[in-house]
Amino acid sequence: MKIIGEKINGTRKRVAQAIAGRDAEFIKDLAHKQAAAGAAWLDVNAGTHPDQEPDDLIWLIETIQSVVETPLSLDSANPKALQIAIQAVKQTPMINSISGEPERLANILPIVAEHGCPVIALAMDEKKIPETAEKRLEVVQKIVEQARALGIPDSRLYIDPLAMTLSTNTGSAMIAFGVLRQVRQEFPETHLTIGLSNISFGLPARSFVNRYFLALAMQAGLDAAILDPLDREIQAAILATELILGRDKYCMNYIRASRKGLFDKLE
Amino acid sequence: MKIIGEKINGTRKRVAQAIAGRDAEFIKDLAHKQAAAGAAWLDVNAGTHPDQEPDDLIWLIETIQSVVETPLSLDSANPKALQIAIQAVKQTPMINSISGEPERLANILPIVAEHGCPVIALAMDEKKIPETAEKRLEVVQKIVEQARALGIPDSRLYIDPLAMTLSTNTGSAMIAFGVLRQVRQEFPETHLTIGLSNISFGLPARSFVNRYFLALAMQAGLDAAILDPLDREIQAAILATELILGRDKYCMNYIRASRKGLFDKLE
Repeated sequence: MKIIGEKINGTRKRVAQAIAGRDAEFIKDLAHKQAAAGAAWLDVNAGTHPDQEPDDLIWLIETIQSVVETPLSLDSANPKALQIAIQAVKQTPMINSISGEPERLANILPIVAEHGCPVIALAMDEKKIPETAEKRLEVVQKIVEQARALGIPDSRLYIDPLAMTLSTNTGSAMIAFGVLRQVRQEFPETHLTIGLSNISFGLPARSFVNRYFLALAMQAGLDAAILDPLDREIQAAILATELILGRDKYCMNYIRASRKGLFDKLE
Repeated sequence: MKIIGEKINGTRKRVAQAIAGRDAEFIKDLAHKQAAAGAAWLDVNAGTHPDQEPDDLIWLIETIQSVVETPLSLDSANPKALQIAIQAVKQTPMINSISGEPERLANILPIVAEHGCPVIALAMDEKKIPETAEKRLEVVQKIVEQARALGIPDSRLYIDPLAMTLSTNTGSAMIAFGVLRQVRQEFPETHLTIGLSNISFGLPARSFVNRYFLALAMQAGLDAAILDPLDREIQAAILATELILGRDKYCMNYIRASRKGLFDKLE
């Protein structure tokens, strides 16, 4: 299970303040803690000011890279900002994200191909999220086809089936699981990722929904996720689920985490 | 999700003491609390003294029935004790359990047929638990065949795939899930149940393994389980999983549990 650390995101108030005030220590701390918690990538989102996005991204990238070597996930829908940012990264970054939207494919996919990046591909079209698993799969098929045409191997695609909130449609998780299973079957080399925050939007006790949703998604084929790697309940969910799914040899990761006290602090 | 409350079990020291000392208040309290927590059946196990088993079972049954109307699950491998106990119950009880063992089938299945009982059927043969899902399915096929021959409908069978501890075989849960999925497909009218205590035997932080195992087993088709209905983390796991699997209309069970404070006490 590969984790994309979500905490350096300029749409969050505290991070936006740190970006505006060039508070490097705050950003370094988030980078350091997420890397120490085992994040495979650190997502970097400069927030919602298009004019400043390239400058803010560069500052974030340089600040983060001054303390950790973890690869970054460049989180922007703006091809120009991505083009500039990609010059500043030391290691090949993940691109977050493309979708079935033709313009986004046309502008971002060549960057992905040129720089050999892994890329998150959302199962949605022109900003519309299809209601059914079948329609989302059609979008994925189109994306895979176009990626292949540019020589991008399936193994660099991180397909996100999109999890909408259960509070408005109790079938939301099942639709996402359907996409996960079908993509895993049809494109076995692709990776499967998901964002954890939408599924429980509008519900009470959200963290319980998030952690069990993650476990069930892992059973449906998920092998990556954008989440808070510092959340100890989520860490416990991942460790227990990996163990149950038979992926923790001699149970050593689980036992080691227990010895370090992970579960004591939760029970 | 139907719960068989496991707490009135004479193999547990405190319950054995209560049985030996005819401590009716202790048993009534366990019965009342499990029923209030929503148990569909209360398991009744008189413990490990074959000579006393019929007497102890009758006492337990009468004690429990003096405070709750919840149907009982008669937990005994002894056909004579079952024959006697079944005379004392007010409502049709579940029988816990049969297996592919010919003697157990020959002696207990007629009781099940005569009294119209639901019955737990373990996917094991002559006290040996097959290593593979395929072999366990063969045992299930044999049990279903013999039950049908006596006119017992599939819908009264509660198949238990058996969950062995992950600490000696990290594939244990996957084998159990394989049996669940295959039985659900081949015998769609049967129910699927499991005991929660074995899977985590010998591991640290057992409760985390148990709760995520339960969630993943529900995704694989489980619709019943023998467990402690008073365990609030397990209650949360079931509520969150039912919600995610699209079985909680308008999310009302989840929201109601939250209003009652279930999650506050856990977070």
